[in-house]
Amino acid sequence: MINQKLPKIWYGGDYNPEQWDREVWKEDERMFKLAGIDVATVNVFSWALTQPDEDTYDFSVLDETMDRLYKEGVYICLATSTGAHPAWMARKYPDVLRVDVQGRKRKFGGRHNSCPNSPSYRKFSVQIAAKLAERYKDHPGLLIWHVSNEYGGYCYCENCAAGFRTWLKERYGTLDALNKAWNTRFWGHTFYDWEEIVVPNELSEEWGGNRTNFQGISLDYRRFMSYSLLECYKLEQAELKKYTPDIPVTTNLMGFYPELDYFEWAKHMDIVSWDNYPSLNTPVSFTAMTHDLMRGLKSGDPFMLMEQTPSQQNWQPYNSLKRPGVMRLWSYQAVARGADTVMFFQLRRSIGACEKYHGAVIEHVGHEHTRVFRECAELGQELQSLGDKLLDARTQARVAIVYDWENRWALELSSGPTVALNYVDEVHKYYDALFKMNVEVDMVSVKEDFSKYDIVIAPVLYMVKPGFAKRAEQFVSAGGTFVTTFFSGIVNENDLVTTGGYPGELRSLLGIWAEEIDALFPDQKNEIVMKQDWNGLSGTYECGVLCDLIHSEGAEVLAEYGQDFYQGMPVLTRNRFGAGKAYYVASSPDEAFMESFLANLCEEKGIKGLLPERAPEGVETARRVKAGKEYLFLLNHNAEAAEVIIGDNPRQDLLAHSSVSGSVTVPGRGVVILES
Amino acid sequence: MINQKLPKIWYGGDYNPEQWDREVWKEDERMFKLAGIDVATVNVFSWALTQPDEDTYDFSVLDETMDRLYKEGVYICLATSTGAHPAWMARKYPDVLRVDVQGRKRKFGGRHNSCPNSPSYRKFSVQIAAKLAERYKDHPGLLIWHVSNEYGGYCYCENCAAGFRTWLKERYGTLDALNKAWNTRFWGHTFYDWEEIVVPNELSEEWGGNRTNFQGISLDYRRFMSYSLLECYKLEQAELKKYTPDIPVTTNLMGFYPELDYFEWAKHMDIVSWDNYPSLNTPVSFTAMTHDLMRGLKSGDPFMLMEQTPSQQNWQPYNSLKRPGVMRLWSYQAVARGADTVMFFQLRRSIGACEKYHGAVIEHVGHEHTRVFRECAELGQELQSLGDKLLDARTQARVAIVYDWENRWALELSSGPTVALNYVDEVHKYYDALFKMNVEVDMVSVKEDFSKYDIVIAPVLYMVKPGFAKRAEQFVSAGGTFVTTFFSGIVNENDLVTTGGYPGELRSLLGIWAEEIDALFPDQKNEIVMKQDWNGLSGTYECGVLCDLIHSEGAEVLAEYGQDFYQGMPVLTRNRFGAGKAYYVASSPDEAFMESFLANLCEEKGIKGLLPERAPEGVETARRVKAGKEYLFLLNHNAEAAEVIIGDNPRQDLLAHSSVSGSVTVPGRGVVILES
Amino acid sequence: MINQKLPKIWYGGDYNPEQWDREVWKEDERMFKLAGIDVATVNVFSWALTQPDEDTYDFSVLDETMDRLYKEGVYICLATSTGAHPAWMARKYPDVLRVDVQGRKRKFGGRHNSCPNSPSYRKFSVQIAAKLAERYKDHPGLLIWHVSNEYGGYCYCENCAAGFRTWLKERYGTLDALNKAWNTRFWGHTFYDWEEIVVPNELSEEWGGNRTNFQGISLDYRRFMSYSLLECYKLEQAELKKYTPDIPVTTNLMGFYPELDYFEWAKHMDIVSWDNYPSLNTPVSFTAMTHDLMRGLKSGDPFMLMEQTPSQQNWQPYNSLKRPGVMRLWSYQAVARGADTVMFFQLRRSIGACEKYHGAVIEHVGHEHTRVFRECAELGQELQSLGDKLLDARTQARVAIVYDWENRWALELSSGPTVALNYVDEVHKYYDALFKMNVEVDMVSVKEDFSKYDIVIAPVLYMVKPGFAKRAEQFVSAGGTFVTTFFSGIVNENDLVTTGGYPGELRSLLGIWAEEIDALFPDQKNEIVMKQDWNGLSGTYECGVLCDLIHSEGAEVLAEYGQDFYQGMPVLTRNRFGAGKAYYVASSPDEAFMESFLANLCEEKGIKGLLPERAPEGVETARRVKAGKEYLFLLNHNAEAAEVIIGDNPRQDLLAHSSVSGSVTVPGRGVVILES
Repeated sequence: MINQKLPKIWYGGDYNPEQWDREVWKEDERMFKLAGIDVATVNVFSWALTQPDEDTYDFSVLDETMDRLYKEGVYICLATSTGAHPAWMARKYPDVLRVDVQGRKRKFGGRHNSCPNSPSYRKFSVQIAAKLAERYKDHPGLLIWHVSNEYGGYCYCENCAAGFRTWLKERYGTLDALNKAWNTRFWGHTFYDWEEIVVPNELSEEWGGNRTNFQGISLDYRRFMSYSLLECYKLEQAELKKYTPDIPVTTNLMGFYPELDYFEWAKHMDIVSWDNYPSLNTPVSFTAMTHDLMRGLKSGDPFMLMEQTPSQQNWQPYNSLKRPGVMRLWSYQAVARGADTVMFFQLRRSIGACEKYHGAVIEHVGHEHTRVFRECAELGQELQSLGDKLLDARTQARVAIVYDWENRWALELSSGPTVALNYVDEVHKYYDALFKMNVEVDMVSVKEDFSKYDIVIAPVLYMVKPGFAKRAEQFVSAGGTFVTTFFSGIVNENDLVTTGGYPGELRSLLGIWAEEIDALFPDQKNEIVMKQDWNGLSGTYECGVLCDLIHSEGAEVLAEYGQDFYQGMPVLTRNRFGAGKAYYVASSPDEAFMESFLANLCEEKGIKGLLPERAPEGVETARRVKAGKEYLFLLNHNAEAAEVIIGDNPRQDLLAHSSVSGSVTVPGRGVVILES
Repeated sequence: MINQKLPKIWYGGDYNPEQWDREVWKEDERMFKLAGIDVATVNVFSWALTQPDEDTYDFSVLDETMDRLYKEGVYICLATSTGAHPAWMARKYPDVLRVDVQGRKRKFGGRHNSCPNSPSYRKFSVQIAAKLAERYKDHPGLLIWHVSNEYGGYCYCENCAAGFRTWLKERYGTLDALNKAWNTRFWGHTFYDWEEIVVPNELSEEWGGNRTNFQGISLDYRRFMSYSLLECYKLEQAELKKYTPDIPVTTNLMGFYPELDYFEWAKHMDIVSWDNYPSLNTPVSFTAMTHDLMRGLKSGDPFMLMEQTPSQQNWQPYNSLKRPGVMRLWSYQAVARGADTVMFFQLRRSIGACEKYHGAVIEHVGHEHTRVFRECAELGQELQSLGDKLLDARTQARVAIVYDWENRWALELSSGPTVALNYVDEVHKYYDALFKMNVEVDMVSVKEDFSKYDIVIAPVLYMVKPGFAKRAEQFVSAGGTFVTTFFSGIVNENDLVTTGGYPGELRSLLGIWAEEIDALFPDQKNEIVMKQDWNGLSGTYECGVLCDLIHSEGAEVLAEYGQDFYQGMPVLTRNRFGAGKAYYVASSPDEAFMESFLANLCEEKGIKGLLPERAPEGVETARRVKAGKEYLFLLNHNAEAAEVIIGDNPRQDLLAHSSVSGSVTVPGRGVVILES
Repeated sequence: MINQKLPKIWYGGDYNPEQWDREVWKEDERMFKLAGIDVATVNVFSWALTQPDEDTYDFSVLDETMDRLYKEGVYICLATSTGAHPAWMARKYPDVLRVDVQGRKRKFGGRHNSCPNSPSYRKFSVQIAAKLAERYKDHPGLLIWHVSNEYGGYCYCENCAAGFRTWLKERYGTLDALNKAWNTRFWGHTFYDWEEIVVPNELSEEWGGNRTNFQGISLDYRRFMSYSLLECYKLEQAELKKYTPDIPVTTNLMGFYPELDYFEWAKHMDIVSWDNYPSLNTPVSFTAMTHDLMRGLKSGDPFMLMEQTPSQQNWQPYNSLKRPGVMRLWSYQAVARGADTVMFFQLRRSIGACEKYHGAVIEHVGHEHTRVFRECAELGQELQSLGDKLLDARTQARVAIVYDWENRWALELSSGPTVALNYVDEVHKYYDALFKMNVEVDMVSVKEDFSKYDIVIAPVLYMVKPGFAKRAEQFVSAGGTFVTTFFSGIVNENDLVTTGGYPGELRSLLGIWAEEIDALFPDQKNEIVMKQDWNGLSGTYECGVLCDLIHSEGAEVLAEYGQDFYQGMPVLTRNRFGAGKAYYVASSPDEAFMESFLANLCEEKGIKGLLPERAPEGVETARRVKAGKEYLFLLNHNAEAAEVIIGDNPRQDLLAHSSVSGSVTVPGRGVVILES
């Protein structure tokens, strides 16, 4: 449990009373009660308010807010406020300002704007964290620390350059090792002095966001920036722990956010929390996958849904309203997949600056007679009725999908063979097929213990880090099923190609050799032609993006290409390795293939979906397990009601407070939680 | 009358003899006569020529030009030449160079390139204006002053930053007031010292042209830049007035140009003038609306058409020729809507640099035997024959459409709810429907005296400035019809939301509450379903972009949404308020709705089109009135002739010199002016 | 012959052994033998390796490489390595770093990254060239010098600015002349001091790549940059010639690369060499045209194919594999059009940095059992069997197409009349029609001796340089056929319009006057209506982009416009001038017109295709002639075999070693070379 003080699914969100007059605060309290709000995240952007100059601290507003909220039964998620530095600091200590990827020194503005290697920023952020911890360490309302906010963005200033060189010395020891790792003899880039190394941005090696001349330096700079920002987090965290060793510390992550290696971050977080802002055209299964990834960051631990909007967003091109029921549905989706909190950005809508058209529990009209507020209040009631039943419940997946940020960086930085390859989308393809089959999945790091799983899928595992191949082999030897795809096993952790034949270190496990890799134009397709019927996987399927031209070196050929000059070469292979099997999917298949293929793998392993038969289209399933009980979630993303077969065992419908068996009707955009 | 010296519609344009040898000048004079040219705008870009260094002035070429032209019967529109600073000035006084929105200090180049807060630019521009005024104050050819050229573009240098701070102190008095107006507690941006404020550009708060983190500072910076450039104009103007208090002063505006608040500018201009460069795909009614806006800048005063091209432009992607007749047609369109001059850029085509493919009266071939010259010469004759008949004639519209630059800035800077909203296009939708009905319209500012009108339409009046709501209520109370739309009444002049329910200050006038605002994807539509037939406005129409979810608070519901979860909620309402009515159009309707809706409003008020029945498609109408006479313009934008019913009163066809009644045939791309 | 030491078509490519360990070198040698490699380009990017600091040179790796290769029968194309400066140099002498078009000082990174006017770069590049020449002047393996690499890119630093001013003084003598040439009185840009001139980039006159306010300065800056880079080449070349006067010197060009005037460059190159990287959607005839241009740079001299990829590229969006046979086919295409070498980038694929997915003879797998290696080895054998037969053979075209870089710059910099005009595409339209007719074409400069040809085609010859018109007139007077098109004869070498009527200096030769130039929207077309049947050229064709509205001044009107207000005006004219004819094509015609039109011109001159009848679609023809023998190439770009009629004369099939007549079957993607 995150904190024993509030033994239920926390319900609340960001709250910025400092933007409002006192009379409004009373209304807030009244409406929080109506809505069942029991947690408020405060102080997120109050640095300038609490520290008006270098030597002055003024916690009066925060004192009052915390006391007031606690008195009204609202606990506090207390932010350290270091997500945006004050204007006076930018003016007096310009080293806090970043230099951007174009090489431009920034001026004061925006948020998430501090150079992570700025001595001033580090000093002042640690100071304010310490002041807060010292002051509120014994406050009864304090539930959890929220360090900074949505860490992200890179800096390219001289302090970062110096820090980068230090980090590189640590990593490589010698310039010889570095020159080798970056292959600097290409284009005559050999470094003879550490000081010759400059940061890779548009003034040196990079352009267009993710294009680079030297993958090695650009990859390392992403590592270094993720590390530098994490250092800032850790410095504050250490300060907080000095005063409140038992209060958990988190910072809000952002799902598949590309710039930070969250697996590294999660190691230093007491609990993962994240902000869920799907676009209107984000597939439901993509959001589900993201929740599963957030759960996977700490190997299955529950997480916090720190932010979601009650209705509208403001930064998308077209910010549609969340349709009636959708906010509740998506809230339970989070809970179903491991969230122990349901929290919003924000509790009261601001009236000025760029987020004034972002939804809130209390809208600009200010009263409770709105659709949005009513839906929030109803959910608040419902969550109270659930008590602590679901808290700390776990998911028990037998299938794992591997996701890796460094692999993603390397893929995105790569020049060639195609711009059409989107790593996250390829991962999602596999996830989506399992999602539709109602099969539980864990999203795991390359370092996860695979022995917990029957099936491990590592789509486009371009980069194979030290030890991975051996662990994959051990997993398969022991009976596991391993799946990987085209363009895998190509490089090591420095993005240097493993010579001797693709897929490099995975070659003997897979029993194949990929001689060439063809890139298809977006309108071009090839075919997967099954050599024989495999449980309904038969005939011809489409594939595209990349086509590895592979030769079997022992693997069984299950399907061949149907077109082009490599017609007849293998496109799907299975290699028996010890007691297990390793599959290679040499191109990016269509949905029909994916579903049948994964269904067969699950069947081989006796893995079943959560329901006796597949749920109707648009109905999502998930399960959490705790103390011998299992909680089955049925989430109907359709506008219309759906009939779901649940089997003959009687189960308790937690929200309807009734017993059901056989089948259950889930209303349009409705939720059913069945206990058994 | 602009200047008694030339009591007719002025005919001429920009003339740059300094780019040519003397022998060409003689040809110019000969051809000006052939073309009926009687005014030349000179000295527009001659600063470098007349002031070759800081201490030297050389007016010899200009002296000769003015004397020569006057002798040949050509009057002078004399520019102050400050639209582009000399190279020597850029080198010696780099403060005249701008810093751009990306934060880059410019070097010498381009035009309209001076920092408006540069002390050097202000000093030198005032000096040259004074020199010119002193020298030519008694020149008999001098008709009017043309200050600088097409003011525009913003600067972000340190002089501007300092000026901005001064302007802010003036506007807000205290930092507290400023912090409140900008809502700086959002994202912890509180300022404790004026010096902490930096200009909002890509290095601080803005990106992508119109995106900003803080609407408050960005909005104020637009105000400040408009003000700063206007200050430059006013400084020169003051100097000119010292020497020639009776010579009118203008500068050439650019229609709906986004960067300057022309309503503020017009206050300081003796006459409005503007440059009309429609694209080939600009709707005719859009150009008409722009002329009406230019007329509206000074509440109906005639204006100058300062520039148009005789044929081709050069800076559009595809620069088609003006088809035969089009130059004349568009010239009369300007006159019909209030222009008392018809002037070109330019009289002789330059042979080098970026405008050499811009059309001119005298083309590169240099002689009069071109289609373009012939058309110019014919129009010159015709304008001479019109004499002073139309000069100073007025338009008498009973419908006003409100347009406001600050509202536009605030809308464009807003983050959410949609990128699809284009303020000017929404305004044009209303204008276009009235245009097709041959109903006269004034384009007016939010500060205009509404009592002159029967109907006032304020599309998307997002920002309601102090006093506006009260004046709108007075207007309706007294019997007026007021129309506004979705996303209106949201913010005050600082872009701070008016809490308590949209449409804020307009809520009681309109008798509705807008609870939510849905943003539709571009391919998404909703429906306007009329509750009953209203004079042919019946059945179902399409709407889109944004849909306000409104509740009636007294207003009569005329139509409801036909789709989505807010089906059945009001989309068109009418609120009786005192003796008048206030309409709310809660979404952006299709053309069919717009025409019937506005026809009904006009009918309620007894407002009729200019003709007994609607003019054939493509035939534009307009009317000017003077000394008891009315001049009806029929402008046929079709390639084919059109028969127009004009009613039984006999009228004088001014161009054909005949009397007509019943109907009149307007040739393809032809013009008829009927006096009665 | 390029170098007597290797009297055959050279076969090899770029080789970077310094990126590999010694054990790999042995494998290289073994595989080079298998592949028939006899030339290796080395040292291209080894500057940092051979000169680790300012005072140290270390040639040990290069010594070993050269000795080793020579011992194994591989000759050396020795690069001077100045295509990328070392990191230490960038740090110690930052003047070697460029300032980019946005005005940003670069840091160390990339390649082709040195400022061409940097004193340090010039000093160090000349030094390293001298060191190399001195050291290897007597090395028996040394075949040719390869200076730097793919020169290109512009710099805008203060050293370049100073150099530009010096170059301008040289070109114009006085500021008066310069002001006149740039027409600086436009927009008041008159310069009174040379120091006032700044470089034209995004901080001054340019934006968006090719847009400029002042064509004059921008055009001159392109000339100056081409000159500056050429100066760097010449400085190194001079050094090399001191030590090895008899070793040829080249640098690798890039076909239609826009930034350098290769006609100027070729004057200083002993042999032209170039890198051929067509996109997958580059038309075959475009590649053919590019080869012909490279041959035309030195008036028909054979050239080197310095680089091509054995299979994949890496920098295109979708990097498809070269299909089986395509590498051989394209290699022979180069030879057919004048190449005396077939060389690859590169011999062994690198494992790190941005070109690791670029194909190579030896792939990452490292052995010879790959499709790509097999194809390379087979070609190696074949080329050996051809011996010196084709070396130094020439092409004998009777048709020339004029191409001019300065004309291209002026067209691209021009503001108006259309953005749709692509000079190279217009040139290619004419080339393509002749290509399909199997007619040989020379691509020539505006300064070429036209008397060698029967037909000279100069599409869109916008800029007419001094002397050209006279030479064109002499050519036609003497019986030649001259063709030019719309938007020709407009400006002089300074982009100043020739007044008095388009097409300016070409007007009397063409016997027409172009009064206006209409620009069509992309979806707009006009028609070419033939006045009478001319050998099958009859009826109506489409045209677009631009339409000159012309009047005949003596020329015969062959076709008229079919639409719009200029319907009936001439669109195709023929002017008899002396003994010849000058044609004017007043718009951009469709393919059908182009083929019939050019067929007629060829027929008038008795010019025939290379075959008795037109080759099947997709079959390319070319011919080289040497010592009374002719070599006819048949290149089948189709996937399927094609039957080609070759006539009754028996010919020797060089690759099949058989005698053929009548017709010959060319396999899909196959090549036949017929000797007769």
